Amino acid sequence: MARILITSGPTRQYLDPVRFLSNASSGRMGQAIVAAALKAGHSVIVVSGPVQVRYPAAAEVIQVETTDEMLRACLAEFPACDGLIGVAAPCDYKPRRVAAGKITKTGGPLRLELVETPDIVATLGQRKNRQQWTVGFALESSDARFRALAKLEAKHCDLMVVNTPAAINAAESSIEILAPGGQVLASASGPKSRLASLVLKTISSQLMPAAPQQE
Amino acid sequence: MARILITSGPTRQYLDPVRFLSNASSGRMGQAIVAAALKAGHSVIVVSGPVQVRYPAAAEVIQVETTDEMLRACLAEFPACDGLIGVAAPCDYKPRRVAAGKITKTGGPLRLELVETPDIVATLGQRKNRQQWTVGFALESSDARFRALAKLEAKHCDLMVVNTPAAINAAESSIEILAPGGQVLASASGPKSRLASLVLKTISSQLMPAAPQQE
Repeated sequence: MARILITSGPTRQYLDPVRFLSNASSGRMGQAIVAAALKAGHSVIVVSGPVQVRYPAAAEVIQVETTDEMLRACLAEFPACDGLIGVAAPCDYKPRRVAAGKITKTGGPLRLELVETPDIVATLGQRKNRQQWTVGFALESSDARFRALAKLEAKHCDLMVVNTPAAINAAESSIEILAPGGQVLASASGPKSRLASLVLKTISSQLMPAAPQQE
Repeated sequence: MARILITSGPTRQYLDPVRFLSNASSGRMGQAIVAAALKAGHSVIVVSGPVQVRYPAAAEVIQVETTDEMLRACLAEFPACDGLIGVAAPCDYKPRRVAAGKITKTGGPLRLELVETPDIVATLGQRKNRQQWTVGFALESSDARFRALAKLEAKHCDLMVVNTPAAINAAESSIEILAPGGQVLASASGPKSRLASLVLKTISSQLMPAAPQQE
């Protein structure tokens, strides 16, 4: 059985002590993937942004708030893991400058310059050794399969799970699982628990070495 | 007894179908104010942004997501109410343009122009009739009392409750209640339930007509 690093939930990037950029990721898909991985007999470490869901007690959980914090925690944990499932929806932009005090309204517009945050799945994809694997999630509002395959390649993923914004904060969803060549290995709609089982089953058949056969 | 309109929680302002601006307001102070108002015998209508807390069953609740939605709901309900307690932390900036599809990362910075959202407490403060009252909350990271008094005047409030960013998403907090002249009518630290009782008690003594005395 494997030791799996799972990221989950959103992250937050503050403009000032009060306001932040984020998204509505609830952590429910992450929770379902954690449960499915534990059920399959793997050991799980979760790095999670601020969510209301509770992860199964058998999972080790590291709480973070920003994308940089999530990356730091993942870099520390990944070397001891067999693989990564990046379910989190980290903020991919952050303000170039964070105001020390609450920004006061002036009556005029506020120009904000956002810069990209580090990409967690891509960073771990570049650093993985030959035994390690990485699986990403791509949330796309259009050209989903095409964009997801481009992300798979850019992030050096072994598999990419594709879903749409309708999945955010919903109990049900629909996914496709893409291989590096672009083949759709599996697809399904339904409760996140069922989709999570399918993701784990696909990872197991595609990425995990078969157990040695007894003679 | 009065009919009180209470706003609670954060609002969200989307940049695209996935990303939004918000803040960590949990709705817990709103929840405590709703409970204190009901306990004092008032009828309560809550207009709430996305929160995890549950409001008491005796309160009527209208769920909203953006600041404009919160304002619309308040404008519809306020004429039938005796007063407003604006506990919500609505997003006060929104992107000038909202992208129809998820903004794709380019590798470069993203310049965002934010414009102010309408101020709900100020709008109702301007529209209130002689019998109606409005109470605001001011969250200030510095010069709290001075800035809160300026807000009280700008927003035509009858009272202003001052707190600090440490109050966000916390069970305990500390507040001061300012009158239009700048007098500190009350101040307290402790559980939000206790602070909420103090707010309601102060509203009752300062803003509600005394019941007619029997001879």
